[in-house]
Amino acid sequence: MTGHDSPALEVARAYYQAWTGKDIEAALRHLADDVVCDAPAGRLQGIEAYRRFLGPFSEMLLDSELLAAFGDSTTAVLVYDTATPLVASAPGAECLTVRDGKIVHNRFIFDRLPFEAARRSAG
Amino acid sequence: MTGHDSPALEVARAYYQAWTGKDIEAALRHLADDVVCDAPAGRLQGIEAYRRFLGPFSEMLLDSELLAAFGDSTTAVLVYDTATPLVASAPGAECLTVRDGKIVHNRFIFDRLPFEAARRSAG
Repeated sequence: MTGHDSPALEVARAYYQAWTGKDIEAALRHLADDVVCDAPAGRLQGIEAYRRFLGPFSEMLLDSELLAAFGDSTTAVLVYDTATPLVASAPGAECLTVRDGKIVHNRFIFDRLPFEAARRSAG
Repeated sequence: MTGHDSPALEVARAYYQAWTGKDIEAALRHLADDVVCDAPAGRLQGIEAYRRFLGPFSEMLLDSELLAAFGDSTTAVLVYDTATPLVASAPGAECLTVRDGKIVHNRFIFDRLPFEAARRSAG
């Protein structure tokens, strides 16, 4: 009962490997066309909105470390740390719902405050 | 292999039920004396620091909803949404490490930005 192997987690891991490997197009192929993402700034709908949200972050990623990954038949949770030129350590969590092998919903949690602070001091 | 039942998750659930039930003292009894918490604002060490961090938030909680909970022998992950007078929907994630029945480490992830905005507009 470790939850480290599940249908939803398999999809989540592939998506995570792709976006943290800067292959955003491969990551998006794991999403349903009508994916809904509840991100810190609000709800995103559809793959194009998801690309605009995650693509720029994926591109500037210097490093990432997966801290925990669990799942069951429909839900997967990923917890990780990220490093970018803006913020040296910015942990995130994603709670993904998978249906028919595609991510249909994601609740994306991270702290926007250090990114805002970095942008203000750069701007 | 669902990860919904595990020694670490059992402790994490009891801790979560306590703090979201506004019984911070009961929540703290699930922590090791030398607990380390990597919170958005930085690292907290020891139970007193944890009380000062989580106590005020626990007290002002209006509602909470557990969205996902997984674990294995040593790690548990909780994803939830919270409602407070400051922020109507503030999701959080906790990635807890449990040793000998006590939480020894927690990586606590949430977005501080709406709380900062609420405090600024109130101040």
